[in-house]
Amino acid sequence: MTAQPHRAASGDKSGTAGASANRTEIESLTVAQAGERRVLAEILSRIPTGTPLLGPDDDAAIVAAPDGRFAVTVDTMIEGPDFRREWSTARQLGSKAVTTNLSDIAAMGAVPSALVIALAVPRDTRVSWVAEFADGVSAQLRRLAPGCGVVGGDLATAEHITISVTAFGDLQGRDPITRSGARPGDQIAVAGTLGRAAAGLHLLFRGEADPLTAVQLAPESPISAGVAAALAGATAMMDLSDGLLLDGDRMAAASDVALDFSRELLHTDIAPLAERFGPELAEQFVLGGGEDHSLLATFACDAELPRPFRRIGTVRPIGTVRQGCGTLVDGEPADPAGWDPFVGVTA
Amino acid sequence: MTAQPHRAASGDKSGTAGASANRTEIESLTVAQAGERRVLAEILSRIPTGTPLLGPDDDAAIVAAPDGRFAVTVDTMIEGPDFRREWSTARQLGSKAVTTNLSDIAAMGAVPSALVIALAVPRDTRVSWVAEFADGVSAQLRRLAPGCGVVGGDLATAEHITISVTAFGDLQGRDPITRSGARPGDQIAVAGTLGRAAAGLHLLFRGEADPLTAVQLAPESPISAGVAAALAGATAMMDLSDGLLLDGDRMAAASDVALDFSRELLHTDIAPLAERFGPELAEQFVLGGGEDHSLLATFACDAELPRPFRRIGTVRPIGTVRQGCGTLVDGEPADPAGWDPFVGVTA
Repeated sequence: MTAQPHRAASGDKSGTAGASANRTEIESLTVAQAGERRVLAEILSRIPTGTPLLGPDDDAAIVAAPDGRFAVTVDTMIEGPDFRREWSTARQLGSKAVTTNLSDIAAMGAVPSALVIALAVPRDTRVSWVAEFADGVSAQLRRLAPGCGVVGGDLATAEHITISVTAFGDLQGRDPITRSGARPGDQIAVAGTLGRAAAGLHLLFRGEADPLTAVQLAPESPISAGVAAALAGATAMMDLSDGLLLDGDRMAAASDVALDFSRELLHTDIAPLAERFGPELAEQFVLGGGEDHSLLATFACDAELPRPFRRIGTVRPIGTVRQGCGTLVDGEPADPAGWDPFVGVTA
Repeated sequence: MTAQPHRAASGDKSGTAGASANRTEIESLTVAQAGERRVLAEILSRIPTGTPLLGPDDDAAIVAAPDGRFAVTVDTMIEGPDFRREWSTARQLGSKAVTTNLSDIAAMGAVPSALVIALAVPRDTRVSWVAEFADGVSAQLRRLAPGCGVVGGDLATAEHITISVTAFGDLQGRDPITRSGARPGDQIAVAGTLGRAAAGLHLLFRGEADPLTAVQLAPESPISAGVAAALAGATAMMDLSDGLLLDGDRMAAASDVALDFSRELLHTDIAPLAERFGPELAEQFVLGGGEDHSLLATFACDAELPRPFRRIGTVRPIGTVRQGCGTLVDGEPADPAGWDPFVGVTA
């Protein structure tokens, strides 16, 4: 871990009037001009560190794991394959890096406890870009997981921006909610949007400015719904990053069941998109579109669904579908490969 | 976390004769040709997962933290600034990525418990390269930290190879050994090599094949010495990644003391390098050279040093040195900036 500024950094007095003037000056520099020490000080002044037992200025941070276990997930976003700087602001990227990782923690039924962030940027990146990225991280952490802070990190230079976040969660004494516990007869439910991130991506490719693009660029995952699901007895849960059918197929495989989604129950997701994009593309987005980072969960047939979960289908025995296909729509096998949200994009 | 192969991967039967033939075939493909699922299966078949409570095939892994806390550190290696593929084999890079991170965990007095790895490689990288990287990770984990496994990861494509490792450690009920506990009169001690990685880098720049280059390309950190130091009552400890004087200055600042290194005690480090490189460059390497990933620790003046620590100096009160300089050599202020191992390299 190299998130400690050099010794001289202890002389920085962030928050004083003098520092404000310096800050504006620093922000106009490139990271190569400002140097690692000053860029790190700039980041650390903006990001909540939470309450680790030992913070990011030693070889390693020490984080509490009150129930004797911790959940951990890692996800990387790379400029080019994962985002474009002409589409995403630094603030949106900071926000999305937090959301996608916290969503994986929430999907276990855990409460996010801490993050570490490895950030690499080109040498000519303005310090203001890094500062805005930190602001995006900070705002999203405060909104989605108050108390969860950044306990460590690594800052480097690279030709393309690379953001790797490792997130931790506390299970608070509960069993983790895995993908493998769905049982025939269970209700299938979702918390969060479906298809809206894919619709946003579609509009970005078409060059259209629209509020929907924000769902793609800075998704909002229902983080607290993860614990709500665990407390309500969810039998299985996962983060929706690659689309309802593809992720649903993974849950089906892990649980040795089939997931049967209902068009009628998905009507509230499909209808608003159909008005704008037509029924066919709307269904592609909702069934095949990824990156909403909503939570897919299953609950016993007689369970009362916790807010904000809504029912979207029913778990069936594995025998109801043909080999290799774990998802159905209205009882008919639905191959994830058949719902490709990029069909509309590349047409 | 996306370290789970798709559903069809469950049909893979690693370890059978049929799979061996397939493996050889797969290794000759590029990662783009083989696809994420097969590359992940190849990696997972080679890397120890340790004994997490829940492994890398769900949204997050669950790792035990028996004493209710965990140590965490993150470090990134990027092709170009941090390594060159013409110097480092994939196996050496896998080994080094493990070592540099475990060394930070050991420096807290913790026992490495688990890792997560985010790896990004160019699309035209051979699967055999990734497999050898995994073998390097695996071999080094088994050697330095038996029982510590890779519990999660993320695989992506990027223009330049990017390796980001987050490592965890268990304090086994002990207090972490920070950088801030050194007291005047304490013995300064080191476990591991000094200057040999810098000498290796010097030889690499000169294009010389030599066993010393292996210290730079795949350093060996004395991981178990971290716990030994904690049990022996070390007052402060840190990983040596940026050189004895620069890292020593950080410990001095954190502890509000000065570190006084002794040329006589450092003789066993300097002498063998002096025979080959001359006394001046040898001292540059030992005092200024980084990347040995040895452990620097302080112990009470009457403490018996645990193996393999050896004494290299004495902690002094802060008043003994001029402002802003926390390190001395034989009682004389030694500015870290004055010992630049690249002086010899670029000459």
